[in-house]
Amino acid sequence: MSEEYDVIIIGGGPGGLTTAIYTARAGLSSLLIEGGMVGGKMIEAGQLDNYPGFPDGISGFDLGQLMYQQATKYGLKMTTSTVTIIEVKDKHKVVRTTDGDFSARTVIITGGSERQKLGVPGEKKFTGKGVSFCSTCDGPLFKDKPVAVVGGGNVAITEALHRTRFASHVTVIHRRDKLRATHILQEKAFAQAKIDFRWNTIVEAIEGDNFVEKLKLRNVLTGEVSTLSVAGVFISVGLKPNTGYLKDIVALDELGQVIVNNNMETQTPGIFAAGDIRSGSIRQAIAAAGDGAIAAISAQKYLSK
Amino acid sequence: MSEEYDVIIIGGGPGGLTTAIYTARAGLSSLLIEGGMVGGKMIEAGQLDNYPGFPDGISGFDLGQLMYQQATKYGLKMTTSTVTIIEVKDKHKVVRTTDGDFSARTVIITGGSERQKLGVPGEKKFTGKGVSFCSTCDGPLFKDKPVAVVGGGNVAITEALHRTRFASHVTVIHRRDKLRATHILQEKAFAQAKIDFRWNTIVEAIEGDNFVEKLKLRNVLTGEVSTLSVAGVFISVGLKPNTGYLKDIVALDELGQVIVNNNMETQTPGIFAAGDIRSGSIRQAIAAAGDGAIAAISAQKYLSK
Repeated sequence: MSEEYDVIIIGGGPGGLTTAIYTARAGLSSLLIEGGMVGGKMIEAGQLDNYPGFPDGISGFDLGQLMYQQATKYGLKMTTSTVTIIEVKDKHKVVRTTDGDFSARTVIITGGSERQKLGVPGEKKFTGKGVSFCSTCDGPLFKDKPVAVVGGGNVAITEALHRTRFASHVTVIHRRDKLRATHILQEKAFAQAKIDFRWNTIVEAIEGDNFVEKLKLRNVLTGEVSTLSVAGVFISVGLKPNTGYLKDIVALDELGQVIVNNNMETQTPGIFAAGDIRSGSIRQAIAAAGDGAIAAISAQKYLSK
Repeated sequence: MSEEYDVIIIGGGPGGLTTAIYTARAGLSSLLIEGGMVGGKMIEAGQLDNYPGFPDGISGFDLGQLMYQQATKYGLKMTTSTVTIIEVKDKHKVVRTTDGDFSARTVIITGGSERQKLGVPGEKKFTGKGVSFCSTCDGPLFKDKPVAVVGGGNVAITEALHRTRFASHVTVIHRRDKLRATHILQEKAFAQAKIDFRWNTIVEAIEGDNFVEKLKLRNVLTGEVSTLSVAGVFISVGLKPNTGYLKDIVALDELGQVIVNNNMETQTPGIFAAGDIRSGSIRQAIAAAGDGAIAAISAQKYLSK
């Protein structure tokens, strides 16, 4: 732990990368800690059509890379590690990770949401063997085979549409009787002949031998149980903030998201949060980026006090 | 007034354009009312280096055009008019403009800030004749002539740097003894041989015949009065929200900015605000865009109630 940074940013999604662009450009020594690839959940989103400035859309992967280039241009440093705990010693914060400890005067928490699991038999066993939480990873594996998508939000329906390029058929399984996805996505999905819908339906088990072969389904209104043969299932039923390690450091809401004020300040001086992880977030890349700029400016003010 | 829109957006800066991308893409009938050009104050900012996704920077003009293309792709309509008043009749809002009345179920206020004036003799007389509030409009007019910039923020210093390409010399006049501009801009300005600084100094009068010829300056610490010969002066001393027409419709803060909660909702149901015009804004394009997405989603929720 040789150096105390001005700012440590946890998470390399649009919130963290925008924070980094602002803090690095302001001349603050800045370290970004990311457990995986920069871009965050934008990567899984595939194509973004609503990030302002890209009228033809841009892939989440590409946008993450562009933001990362922009931040490193101003001197951002990055390390690939997973944060295990934050220790607050008045004005000094120590961020302990799987690859060593880092110290800073301010910490900006922008990552830590993970995909919600179904919690049904077979889900864990077949993850990577037909069960997928990452849309861009394995679509082509299911060429000319039937697949299922569980969920009714933007990510689920985007994925269902995307899978029609490879799969022979896509069944969308949704526990409600209507989708949460945007109007445009719904229209596209309803017009796509390869997609059908199982409404008011939940997955009770995922079964197979070495790979996924079928799903046990139950209609929550009628109680009717059925079986669906699929080669793969993509699960998109929401995000779960992985913020347990923060509970003694900052206040969390009932969903486990970090509570902040309008300036992205937590109740702990010098600790800020931005993006999907903060309470009340609309979970959109552009809003996370806006949060990131606000958090950076608040950190800058805190440091100049 | 033939049609009631779902959403009327007042202002075509990054906040208004992002709102429009979101509302139009969500299938809501959307009208944007802008008094000038789309892009808003981004146009005056010249080059933006901190809008995430453009590592080499992008001109504010170009970014405004890209956002506008993106919104019109999803069916946004636009009219060039100036809003004079908003009338709220329960769920129906009538927006009266210089070019007719428009009706909508929701209104999102994202524009209305204007440049603060100095309020000194000669300022009004010489506007467009050497006095400028718009940085990209008339720089080349002052080729090989001395100019002044009044102010110490990012816009002022960006402008001072920009003007060195054309002008023979640039004097920055600032009423304080240090700049508010970012670290990087300060470094660049201090390193630029063509720029000098008059600290703790205000402009008392702008004088000339048909065009600006000289400025009367006063040092606020010593009281010393001096004269500076210039061919032009760019005034960048902050923004003034032009929200007087809203005072009976929504709550305003002491600066005249619209008070909103975290969801960009004003206290008046169905009326939202986003960007520089809302209370507490950090006045950055990316934050205005983030606000716009939040306001759009809040409007969508209001409309689906």
